[in-house]
Amino acid sequence: MIGRSRAARHRNPAPLIYSAAMPLIVQKYGGTSVKDADRISSVARRVVETRKAGNDVVVVASAMGDTTDELITLATQVSSHPGGREMDMLLTAGERISMALLAMAIGDLGVEAASLTGSQAGILTDSTHGEAKITAIRGDRVRQYLDEGLVVIVAGFQGVDPESRDVTTLGRGGSDATAVALTAALGGDVCEIYTDVDGVFTADPRLVGTARKLDEVSYEDMLELAGAGARILMARSVEFARRFGIPLHVRSSFHDRAGTWIKEDAMEQTVITAVAHDTSEAKVTVHGVPDQPGIAAKLFGALAAEDVDVDMIVQNVSTEGHTDISFTIPQAHMDKAKSATEQVIPELEAEGVDVDPTIAKVSLVGAGMRNHPGVAADMFRVLSDHGINISMISTSAIRISCVIDSDRCDEAVRALHDYYLPAEAAS
Amino acid sequence: MIGRSRAARHRNPAPLIYSAAMPLIVQKYGGTSVKDADRISSVARRVVETRKAGNDVVVVASAMGDTTDELITLATQVSSHPGGREMDMLLTAGERISMALLAMAIGDLGVEAASLTGSQAGILTDSTHGEAKITAIRGDRVRQYLDEGLVVIVAGFQGVDPESRDVTTLGRGGSDATAVALTAALGGDVCEIYTDVDGVFTADPRLVGTARKLDEVSYEDMLELAGAGARILMARSVEFARRFGIPLHVRSSFHDRAGTWIKEDAMEQTVITAVAHDTSEAKVTVHGVPDQPGIAAKLFGALAAEDVDVDMIVQNVSTEGHTDISFTIPQAHMDKAKSATEQVIPELEAEGVDVDPTIAKVSLVGAGMRNHPGVAADMFRVLSDHGINISMISTSAIRISCVIDSDRCDEAVRALHDYYLPAEAAS
Repeated sequence: MIGRSRAARHRNPAPLIYSAAMPLIVQKYGGTSVKDADRISSVARRVVETRKAGNDVVVVASAMGDTTDELITLATQVSSHPGGREMDMLLTAGERISMALLAMAIGDLGVEAASLTGSQAGILTDSTHGEAKITAIRGDRVRQYLDEGLVVIVAGFQGVDPESRDVTTLGRGGSDATAVALTAALGGDVCEIYTDVDGVFTADPRLVGTARKLDEVSYEDMLELAGAGARILMARSVEFARRFGIPLHVRSSFHDRAGTWIKEDAMEQTVITAVAHDTSEAKVTVHGVPDQPGIAAKLFGALAAEDVDVDMIVQNVSTEGHTDISFTIPQAHMDKAKSATEQVIPELEAEGVDVDPTIAKVSLVGAGMRNHPGVAADMFRVLSDHGINISMISTSAIRISCVIDSDRCDEAVRALHDYYLPAEAAS
Repeated sequence: MIGRSRAARHRNPAPLIYSAAMPLIVQKYGGTSVKDADRISSVARRVVETRKAGNDVVVVASAMGDTTDELITLATQVSSHPGGREMDMLLTAGERISMALLAMAIGDLGVEAASLTGSQAGILTDSTHGEAKITAIRGDRVRQYLDEGLVVIVAGFQGVDPESRDVTTLGRGGSDATAVALTAALGGDVCEIYTDVDGVFTADPRLVGTARKLDEVSYEDMLELAGAGARILMARSVEFARRFGIPLHVRSSFHDRAGTWIKEDAMEQTVITAVAHDTSEAKVTVHGVPDQPGIAAKLFGALAAEDVDVDMIVQNVSTEGHTDISFTIPQAHMDKAKSATEQVIPELEAEGVDVDPTIAKVSLVGAGMRNHPGVAADMFRVLSDHGINISMISTSAIRISCVIDSDRCDEAVRALHDYYLPAEAAS
């Protein structure tokens, strides 16, 4: 049912108390936005204001603050290998608590609200516990409540496998995915992602004093930024929003100022939108690999079998029939990547494998790059001017990423931001 | 479906891995039995032992320790009148956490287990949020899991209203009710109630050093004890067990020794089974009521309209056409009882109303009382010998209750226990 047209919900024959033309806003609140009773009451006031301004409102709630981490800790205390069906049953208690409290807090302000679990809200998924994918949304119960004039709170991050009738969780970024998918299924007008930062910046403001909040970012730039280490939104939600043309508004739950809109390009494209960095990866290098067909297939087949997420891949030019293959992976996958690689070393007839977590990936992202050749060369020169060595390079049409030593990351981000996005260029 | 015969589950056409004659034990664990990871692991070991001894096992789990109180506190922080649908949504997170952890802990010991919410387990209720009554149990999913060889964990205290599809909670003693009703619906052989005490005692062992654990108590004695203030089981679960002939075994989760069996009378009846006391009630007295027909109906009608639970009622003999009416209520109902009574005072043409929370109810319970007249007279004499004044008396065929000053309660319980259940009489 994902992808129903916006008009679809107005075909509902239920009695409409409010005008069928009332806009529908989906608001998603992250864990820090609902971390305690005070924050929940504050979110409730914002929801009520939105409702009273003449909108239908669907709220997607994450678990409060550290609840999920606390539940995971409990699970590791009772089980050596917690996971699967029961882990999802456990973790979904988190949103249940936050969404019920939020519904009560909204009710206390005189606006009727009802909370729905992922299952009750018709969020259907596949059966992959812990990393389920949304397969369809049966939005009739949400629509019915909206038609009755209620604010509807939906648990983020969770759904139900219609085959087994078991509860599932959507994995990292799952609450954003819930919000975007619901917006699509319900024909919502905008999906607001509330968080503890002001929006998307030209670089991490903790590193770069002159970093500026962006008023708008295109879907494609945001997709590249997500892949380049910007933690604000997972690529999966941005991709979903792009596919269904849903405008996302990433903004702070701590004040009323506008954040960053993510949508189709409207303005003339800037060459460089932002500088992103990522220090969560490690570099794996396989040395002395014979330069023969099928080597890469064997190596990355072995890694895929162990569910290692491989990001950048670089193969050096062959020297006397041997070459080095380097790739980056999440640091959390280092152990399984090393053992998977070591197991195929004899078969590859390679010399050995190194794993280095002291790396950083710095990236330039900007759709305007397409029409401005030479950005890559400029980037390499800026880094070189600072004496920063580049160990891997990867490019897309609108992104250039360089792997450098992690202890030079902050300096590299500042240098690139100063060069491409200087403070005086701010309008 | 409640009340299916025990043979019913063997009619299930699903493939039976285990013998259809395998006994089914339902075990209910209270909050103190699952209060932390250590206790959950300990409960898991007990469940696994029971399973490996050749039984099908269904476990009913309460929320961990103080979880429910903590959630209620959060609710009062965000809402001035928390309750209803959203309160039930909130509180049901508690069992979700404990049951998932317990299923993981059992799995860690090599026995497959699956947890089910009240809704998933087919616990259907009416729509009274916070105090729902179980109307039916659709046990097919539990039976299917049992037939597949799994231990099934069911959330206590919760169900679903099939009309609204909303989650409900069963109120005080709700997890016991879940366990007993499931035992009936699944045709279980015994329902074990695990708690933090060793069983049912002849008096509260914290007050009476010579109080003894009872090996057996009849349903009817246990019903009277529940009404007389024994907190170990609510009357509703005992009544349900009696109706369907389900043996209850109340026992400690902290050791393996037998507790107290609650079942139909087997042994010769003792005259007095136990001394119970209750200091949670208050006495309301309406003074100077004209002795006319219809007065009591008006008064108690007004109280019922405000959902005040009235326990004992005593009307003094008329003096010059006026009388006093006294009744006891839970202390938690004092405010609403007082306002409801004051509103009908003019209509009753009564003089006024007093509310006194400094009372205690002490009771003797024993089915053998039927054949031993004079127990009441003896009880009044024992209290009189200790200079303890009786302000209200109420009797059933197998119980005598006296209301006294709360500061004389401990002395009265000890005196009655010494007289009726002396230590030397222990076999």
